[in-house]
Amino acid sequence: MRPYLKDPAAIYAESFATVRREARLDRFSADLQQMAVRLIHACGMVEIADRLACSPGAVAAGRAALQAGAPILCDCEMAGAGVIRRYLPRDNQVRVTLNDARTPALAAELGTTRSAAAVELWRDHLAGAVVAIGNAPTALFHLLEMLEGGAPKPAVILGFPVGFVGAAESKAELAANPRGCDFVTLRGRRGGSAMASAAVNALAAGLPEDQA
Amino acid sequence: MRPYLKDPAAIYAESFATVRREARLDRFSADLQQMAVRLIHACGMVEIADRLACSPGAVAAGRAALQAGAPILCDCEMAGAGVIRRYLPRDNQVRVTLNDARTPALAAELGTTRSAAAVELWRDHLAGAVVAIGNAPTALFHLLEMLEGGAPKPAVILGFPVGFVGAAESKAELAANPRGCDFVTLRGRRGGSAMASAAVNALAAGLPEDQA
Repeated sequence: MRPYLKDPAAIYAESFATVRREARLDRFSADLQQMAVRLIHACGMVEIADRLACSPGAVAAGRAALQAGAPILCDCEMAGAGVIRRYLPRDNQVRVTLNDARTPALAAELGTTRSAAAVELWRDHLAGAVVAIGNAPTALFHLLEMLEGGAPKPAVILGFPVGFVGAAESKAELAANPRGCDFVTLRGRRGGSAMASAAVNALAAGLPEDQA
Repeated sequence: MRPYLKDPAAIYAESFATVRREARLDRFSADLQQMAVRLIHACGMVEIADRLACSPGAVAAGRAALQAGAPILCDCEMAGAGVIRRYLPRDNQVRVTLNDARTPALAAELGTTRSAAAVELWRDHLAGAVVAIGNAPTALFHLLEMLEGGAPKPAVILGFPVGFVGAAESKAELAANPRGCDFVTLRGRRGGSAMASAAVNALAAGLPEDQA
C-alpha cells in the first residue's frame, strides 16, 4: 500500500495550499477568497472559482447574522448535516423543514415540489436568516417568489441547487436579481449540499489556516 | 420571474432524459448505467461517466446485500443523511461511527484521522455490508489496510472521497486492487457525500423511470 497523510492538520494545510496555488482567486476580496477556498475544498474542483457569483457584502452579512444568533435554513437534511456545529458562534439553530409533517399537503395545495413547500414553512424565520440551498432548484425559485411577494428578507442566500432542470436557471435568476439580499451562488449545473454546508461553515469559521 | 417546472415527476423525467442524452454510457452494462445516471444526477456533471471505475458485478452484489438486510456503513453524517430510507428493501441500518464516543481516542491511539478511526469501529459489521465513503480519503485507505490485514469483506465498496489530498490516490488504490470486493468509484479529485448516497440509492431503487 502506498504511504498517505494521516495527520488531520497536515491534510487541511496541504489541501488549502493546493487550492490557493491552483485556483484563480484574485478577483475576490479576502473574505470572499476564504469562502471560495472552502467551496472548492468541498467539491475538489478549483475551476468553480470562475463560476462563482456573489454580492460584495455577502460574507460580512452572513457573519453578522450568525453572530446575532440567526437560524440557518436548509432545503435538505444533507445540507443541514454538513454544518459543523462547533463552529457556530451562537449555537444557531439549523432548521430543515423538508420532512415536516405539513410539507406534503402544502406541496399538493401549492402545486409544487415538497422542497418548495418546505421553504414556505420558513416564512416566520426568514428575517435576517442564513439560507443554504444545496439541492432543489424549486426551493430557490420559490424563495425568490416569496421575496417578490414581500416575505421578510434573509441576511444572505447561499444558493447551490444542483442538476439538470432549473438549477442553472434558478441561480441565474438569483444572481441577476437577488431581491435586495446578499448572496453567494455558483453558475451552472454544479452545486450540491456539500457546497451549501461549506458556505455556511465558511461564514461560521473562516478557514482552519486562519485560526490560531 | 421566468416560468419553471414544479411537477416532481416531470422534473425527474426531464433530468434523467438529459443525462441519458448527454452522457457516454455505452460502455456500461444496464445496471451500471442506472448507477452512472444516478451519480451524474447527484452532481450535475455528465462527464464523470468517463472517470467511473467499477467491478462488473458491483450493482448485483450491492443489491443482493441490501435484499439480505446488510447494513450501510457511511464515513460521514452527510452520506448517511442522503440515503433515501423508503427505498431500502429491508429497513437496512445506516451506520455512521464518525461521532461515536470512542472515535477520538481511537484516532489518537492509531495516529490517524477520526474518519479512519471510525472505520475501525465498522469491523464487526463489515461482512457483507454496503460501504459508502463520501468524504475522507483516510477512511478508504484505512478500510483497504484492514482488508489486507484480514478484516471481513464488505459486499461492495462505494468509494467517493473528495478533495486534494489522498482522494485520487485512495480511489486509484481501490480500483487497482479492490482486495476481493466489488466496488464503484470515481477516479480523480471529485466525489462527495451526495455521490456516495446516490450510489446507495441506485442500489436500493434503480431509477424512478424504471419504477412502475
